[in-house]
Amino acid sequence: MKTRLTELLGIKHPIVQGGMMWVSRAKLVAAVSNAGGLGTLTALSLPEPELVAKEIAEIRSLTDKPFAVNLTFLPTLKPVPYEAYAQVILSAGVKIIETAGRNPEPYMPMLKSAGVKVIHKCTSLKHALKAQAIGVDVVSIDGFECAGHPGEQDVGGLVLIPKVAKALEIPVIASGGFGDGRGLVAALALGAEGINMGTRFLATVEADIHQKIKEYLVKADETQTILVERSLKNTMRVLNNAQAKKVLALEAGGAGIAELAPHLSGRLGLKALAEGDPEGFLFACGQTVGLIEDIVPVEQLITRIIRDAESIIKRRLTGLVN
Amino acid sequence: MKTRLTELLGIKHPIVQGGMMWVSRAKLVAAVSNAGGLGTLTALSLPEPELVAKEIAEIRSLTDKPFAVNLTFLPTLKPVPYEAYAQVILSAGVKIIETAGRNPEPYMPMLKSAGVKVIHKCTSLKHALKAQAIGVDVVSIDGFECAGHPGEQDVGGLVLIPKVAKALEIPVIASGGFGDGRGLVAALALGAEGINMGTRFLATVEADIHQKIKEYLVKADETQTILVERSLKNTMRVLNNAQAKKVLALEAGGAGIAELAPHLSGRLGLKALAEGDPEGFLFACGQTVGLIEDIVPVEQLITRIIRDAESIIKRRLTGLVN
Repeated sequence: MKTRLTELLGIKHPIVQGGMMWVSRAKLVAAVSNAGGLGTLTALSLPEPELVAKEIAEIRSLTDKPFAVNLTFLPTLKPVPYEAYAQVILSAGVKIIETAGRNPEPYMPMLKSAGVKVIHKCTSLKHALKAQAIGVDVVSIDGFECAGHPGEQDVGGLVLIPKVAKALEIPVIASGGFGDGRGLVAALALGAEGINMGTRFLATVEADIHQKIKEYLVKADETQTILVERSLKNTMRVLNNAQAKKVLALEAGGAGIAELAPHLSGRLGLKALAEGDPEGFLFACGQTVGLIEDIVPVEQLITRIIRDAESIIKRRLTGLVN
Repeated sequence: MKTRLTELLGIKHPIVQGGMMWVSRAKLVAAVSNAGGLGTLTALSLPEPELVAKEIAEIRSLTDKPFAVNLTFLPTLKPVPYEAYAQVILSAGVKIIETAGRNPEPYMPMLKSAGVKVIHKCTSLKHALKAQAIGVDVVSIDGFECAGHPGEQDVGGLVLIPKVAKALEIPVIASGGFGDGRGLVAALALGAEGINMGTRFLATVEADIHQKIKEYLVKADETQTILVERSLKNTMRVLNNAQAKKVLALEAGGAGIAELAPHLSGRLGLKALAEGDPEGFLFACGQTVGLIEDIVPVEQLITRIIRDAESIIKRRLTGLVN
């Protein structure tokens, strides 16, 4: 399926695997790119910039297709050496970078002079217009349904995506709530040039998390996510598990960042994902979890999405208008 | 455009005008039905059952096309004689009834024996399955984006619609976040058989509200709605206006129903809509408000939606897969 996005990035299918902390590692990234989508390594999953270089080398050993590296600027408990991460990514010759969180403007000259295509992830029309104005190549717009950080405005994808896609001249990727061919066609109809999927890729063979976690996601439904950290204006959609309930109770009790911090730590997640405990950490998860019905290899997932999308267009929709 | 919904209801286009308190009156209802959609009178907009009979007669004087009457069972400040309303609607020979709020099961024998097609509006898969089980003909599923009552689970339409459409055998109408041809195609791709629009119809020539209100809606964007009455488990999406801020402040202060009641009264809305004051009442409004760009006659709106939807299917989408 050819769109402005596939043409710009040199990929076969308009499906982007979104940067997921801890989970977007070489094996998953390479599997997505090999299947014709765009795999995305999350730089901050690696605790040191030098480890990112090693991980990029590993991706290259597994695929010769385009892939991206995500660099997210978000409030963190300890300072992150973003410059060093960016330098390592550029030195490794990465040609697509996904930025998220704060405005990437300070990094744009560095990225553009290195010939990098920049995908900026944001959650509002205002920030999408700003991103276009500072020269990013693609905006990935995250609606209310998304895992992780949907922003503070709570606008659903059905409204946010067409609003942003129409207002921007650069291609828009629809993110949040997507996991199958139905969603891909909906996104394209709304004016996006492709979809970003995170949660759906968790339930694939190549996602490097415990099998029990994947099985938990297949069973979970669309009502089992919740927003935490709203009191910090750092709202995050997570599984409504024991840890989320603990954090929400602390927030309801007026806890500030100092009191909340030990319960937010990402390190909790790294351990729990490996050990198969879906309860003991803030587990970023989108409402798409309600659409996951199986654990499949990435290639099978992507092939099925494209096949279903084509069938919806060629049969269902075309049949309705003829 | 033919779908299972248009076939079942005998309408030309898969576009339903949702029941809107105070606004869904004869002129608007007839305009929608005359344009090939399904207009819906809101029975409870009329303070007495007998007035509903008069209003239905007025609709009949304006159109010979199918239309529906909405009967909503929601918490109200004074008891509503639902039986009497239902009797009047059936006596008038209405053949399509939209129910909402509580489970319509007690009314099903009465409605079915009168040969009525029942559309039940709900906000979760669980209630949609229940509605199908008790014999309703169509489910209208309301996602998080919708005006009025989205329920308490906050699931966006991009996830809720495909989930429900796949699980049900009866036709599903997608509701919440729809206002144009892009949305219609997205809904059809997600498995729905049509769309329900409320907010978008407010900004039409035939909506019987003050011109200033319509102009306010054209200017408002998708971030200008908010959820109130969550503390009452009667969550309602409204314009984030002066009255909404007042109610939210009372809720944050722990006010109960007795203290809140005077500020919720629908009668405030009836007066304000007529006088052109968008601030002084809880104004049910969906996130679709961010997609409204003009005030047009209903027929022009519906014709444009269908034309745009057909163009998206025949040109944009078909072009992407060939």
